[in-house]
Amino acid sequence: MAMGDAQAAMGTNAVPATAMTVGIVGLGLIGGSLGLDLRRRGYRVLGVSRKVLTCDRAVARGAADEASLELASLAPADVIILCTPLNVLGQTVELLRCHLKPETVLTDVGSVKGPIVEEIEPLWPNFVGGHPMAGNTEQGIDAALQDLFQDRPYVLTPTERTPSAAVERVRELAIALGSVPYVCAPDEHDRAVAWISHLPVMVSTSLFQACRREETPAVRQLAQQLASSGFRDTSRVGGGNPELGLLMARYNREALLASLTSYRQSLEQVMAMIEGEDWTGVEATLQQGADDRPLFL
Amino acid sequence: MAMGDAQAAMGTNAVPATAMTVGIVGLGLIGGSLGLDLRRRGYRVLGVSRKVLTCDRAVARGAADEASLELASLAPADVIILCTPLNVLGQTVELLRCHLKPETVLTDVGSVKGPIVEEIEPLWPNFVGGHPMAGNTEQGIDAALQDLFQDRPYVLTPTERTPSAAVERVRELAIALGSVPYVCAPDEHDRAVAWISHLPVMVSTSLFQACRREETPAVRQLAQQLASSGFRDTSRVGGGNPELGLLMARYNREALLASLTSYRQSLEQVMAMIEGEDWTGVEATLQQGADDRPLFL
Repeated sequence: MAMGDAQAAMGTNAVPATAMTVGIVGLGLIGGSLGLDLRRRGYRVLGVSRKVLTCDRAVARGAADEASLELASLAPADVIILCTPLNVLGQTVELLRCHLKPETVLTDVGSVKGPIVEEIEPLWPNFVGGHPMAGNTEQGIDAALQDLFQDRPYVLTPTERTPSAAVERVRELAIALGSVPYVCAPDEHDRAVAWISHLPVMVSTSLFQACRREETPAVRQLAQQLASSGFRDTSRVGGGNPELGLLMARYNREALLASLTSYRQSLEQVMAMIEGEDWTGVEATLQQGADDRPLFL
Repeated sequence: MAMGDAQAAMGTNAVPATAMTVGIVGLGLIGGSLGLDLRRRGYRVLGVSRKVLTCDRAVARGAADEASLELASLAPADVIILCTPLNVLGQTVELLRCHLKPETVLTDVGSVKGPIVEEIEPLWPNFVGGHPMAGNTEQGIDAALQDLFQDRPYVLTPTERTPSAAVERVRELAIALGSVPYVCAPDEHDRAVAWISHLPVMVSTSLFQACRREETPAVRQLAQQLASSGFRDTSRVGGGNPELGLLMARYNREALLASLTSYRQSLEQVMAMIEGEDWTGVEATLQQGADDRPLFL
């Protein structure tokens, strides 16, 4: 490939090729997509998966320069991104740490940060909690996409004990991916995502539970036949991957319950207005929704 | 235009051109879109609007053959489709009926059917409640679109007093539009749309109200910055047109309250599971959502 082609292939967010080596543990949608983009931006990427087939696919797809079943293969890495499910992050770090040089920076991509940071920081001080906020309903290395993180938030959640050089390293990766970095405390992240990510899943899945309570089969069937984009959009995240939803609820239980409690109050308020035929109140509520929505876009 | 062109312009759902004249009262998104398609399928369309400008635009856009400010202009119509807001349907029929021949069929496009049928049937026995279930966030004649009703449900809600010939007439129009006709009782329609259309609006708008309760400004702002497609989809219908949402709530109050009460029970059930760390229950709930969702597509 000519030099010009290589530069073109790196895209507009290209950073100067560095000698930095990035390890990725877990080569699914997120890990694979990170690998695709980081390689295109000149990083050397070492992947680890539990399955040979996934390793082979990752290399074939260009998501890793090399991929292995062995955590020991990540010994040369400068930064390692942990892309396993939340519930196996701790044990992964316990198995991994004996292979690493002390200056290696660890980061993760989990959607909850408080309990993860609390668990991993004592195991590896050079750890920065991270959450690149992108994804889709697909899973696995074959679902990996280029530019998945482009223009998306990438949240970093250092504590007062996190070395600032480690934060800088991960921030540099986020910028190389074309993401928009945010830095906040782990619990601020968790409360914010409870509002905009975990609460909507529970609100949305409750729609299906409610519809199941309709007693007349003809009405239930008619509702299903007449459902259109309004119902589909409102119920989308509640009909998604149950394992992901469950992990969110387990790991972010406290913030999620706080959001659900506020939400129930809001719902009861609007129910009371409809019950009491307070149409001015209902209209004001709907108007506030229309006013607030652009703030979240 | 050659015969072949005319047939091509009529599209695949073309019915033989008839001499039937259709009146449309209210030339907004729905009325205008109905006019565009019915004219293309060979019907003669007479429009009525309160504004001269709207009449002119409707004729210029091909949504009506003629358009007028005068309800009297609809005297020749075989079928009249009322496309005004729900709260002025009754008074429109009272003003209109003195101009009509008794065999003229009236129908409407309102999103609630029970109270509308109850109000209009005594004024005009040849009335069939109707609800073509299509639309978008735009309003007005300039937003009118061809094929808006193609493949969408078109619900007819006759009562035991509705002449069957009247039902057939409106059903014929629905088929000409490429819609899928459904026939059910007015209250069945209202209970079904409470589940899939009116409940989601209230569930969705309550998300904004809940987020307003977040006490830490930094967390509220972070939530807005991190909000992505999940929040956007779940909150979309709650951030829509407040007037439409208000009319739905007013006219379908009873069915909406029943749906909201069921919904609150479902929400409390999932809250109790999270509170009690019943993760098997939470996972089963999320799995039911994933299983139910395809039923509504």
